[in-house]
Amino acid sequence: MKLLRYGPSGAEEPGLLDADGNIRDLSGTIADIGGSDISPEGLARLAAIDPASLPKVEGNPRLGACVANTGKFICIGLNYADHAAESGMAVPSEPVIFMKATSAIVGPNDDVLIPRGSQKTDWEVELGIIIGKTAKYVTEAEALDYVAGYCVAHDVSERAFQTERQGQWTKGKSCDTFGPTGPWLVTKDEVADPQNLGMWLTVNGETMQNGSTKTMVYGVTHLVSYLSQFMSLHPGDIISTGTPPGVGMGMKPQRWLKPGDVVELGVDGLGSQKQHVRADG
Amino acid sequence: MKLLRYGPSGAEEPGLLDADGNIRDLSGTIADIGGSDISPEGLARLAAIDPASLPKVEGNPRLGACVANTGKFICIGLNYADHAAESGMAVPSEPVIFMKATSAIVGPNDDVLIPRGSQKTDWEVELGIIIGKTAKYVTEAEALDYVAGYCVAHDVSERAFQTERQGQWTKGKSCDTFGPTGPWLVTKDEVADPQNLGMWLTVNGETMQNGSTKTMVYGVTHLVSYLSQFMSLHPGDIISTGTPPGVGMGMKPQRWLKPGDVVELGVDGLGSQKQHVRADG
Repeated sequence: MKLLRYGPSGAEEPGLLDADGNIRDLSGTIADIGGSDISPEGLARLAAIDPASLPKVEGNPRLGACVANTGKFICIGLNYADHAAESGMAVPSEPVIFMKATSAIVGPNDDVLIPRGSQKTDWEVELGIIIGKTAKYVTEAEALDYVAGYCVAHDVSERAFQTERQGQWTKGKSCDTFGPTGPWLVTKDEVADPQNLGMWLTVNGETMQNGSTKTMVYGVTHLVSYLSQFMSLHPGDIISTGTPPGVGMGMKPQRWLKPGDVVELGVDGLGSQKQHVRADG
Repeated sequence: MKLLRYGPSGAEEPGLLDADGNIRDLSGTIADIGGSDISPEGLARLAAIDPASLPKVEGNPRLGACVANTGKFICIGLNYADHAAESGMAVPSEPVIFMKATSAIVGPNDDVLIPRGSQKTDWEVELGIIIGKTAKYVTEAEALDYVAGYCVAHDVSERAFQTERQGQWTKGKSCDTFGPTGPWLVTKDEVADPQNLGMWLTVNGETMQNGSTKTMVYGVTHLVSYLSQFMSLHPGDIISTGTPPGVGMGMKPQRWLKPGDVVELGVDGLGSQKQHVRADG
């Protein structure tokens, strides 16, 4: 299934994408895409519904972030060997984790705002893992039992805030609109191999990133198991698994987003995002 | 006012502490301590209520974290010059910020769990700021308009996870139960000077930390303004402002929490916490 949330920001309704690409309204069935409705049992209930029996949503509504009530937006740093190289950093001996503020989450096609004082706003296409069931101290073998599905995640990053303004990357990762998520939560049954997904990102139509989750250092099952050793993962939590090469920071000369730019990005089978970049305030 | 949340974990009811130290039930008035009910207007409505008109809560219920729906638990690192010195680190030229997972939040007297594999679980008494109104790009002069009040926050920290397990402190700050908060949200009108509050922490009755917010490097108004330049702060967000000297990491020899220990901590006017330490799982 491809689950989604549509409607105005803050008032999204749950829906699903049918085989013909129509949005079907799930608001008569569940309150939102999140919580126990994305547990294995909840997803089985949704899968049993004939999409044609749900009201068709007309027009082209805005899409919100594909999952509600995200308590944690956990990101993995330097998780592609070639991206670590372009960043001038070593591949870490175990996953580097940092947090993105959940207040940064927006819909997949919402504007990305360059914060006041920013000089170095950069892009990062990533595979997002969406947790469906509370996970604590789980093994790699059982990790996928706790995963609801996957999504495209854009880990927008302000490099000066991240690395030149005193320690801890969260400062450059948490600005408002720095977390476009979606268009869909694609349930894991539709993703045969999460470690073999092409991923791409363009700026104004020019390809910047063109990689594959094949070159991820620490894969999905390792990350879920690993993180669950440090903290409970809850339904709706998002793990953004790192970015392949091609970020602006790694270019010579370096290149940054500016107002008027258009960023498009996608992951095979998970859909794509398109953001207009503008100055904040 | 001293606002609080009482009852079983996950099912807390809102309340307030009256002048005689009784809990008064606010569940007939508001849904929880959070959101628009801790805005300036919401707090004014609560302040207009005669506590004696509210039902008295009998017995000694468990206290939950003092604020609901916390979207961000932002911590400030190395914000006391003498704590930076004991940590062997320089005072930063601007605030160091990191995130604590909101899933770490527990009540002020709930058990602190030492995570599996932990060798270096440590304590940190801190002054917590609770945001009452969405703040973005606010000045220091107006910062307090966005603050609902203050609380005691315990920034429990696993030092090996934090500093020896590959970059970014969040890994050692986010374990379940590592964020006891409360007992009360003390509204800012009751705190004459947040930069002149004594603060203390004991382990098994022995004083470990004995400091004052007087020696904070970056004060409350600076922090609120500063953070709001990077991200919107929302009602219920907590800013934990750093710890004075006396953490276990800074001792010679270093000292860590172990199962059976009892930690007590407090901040002048904001009440105190008491946690029993035990092994997780």
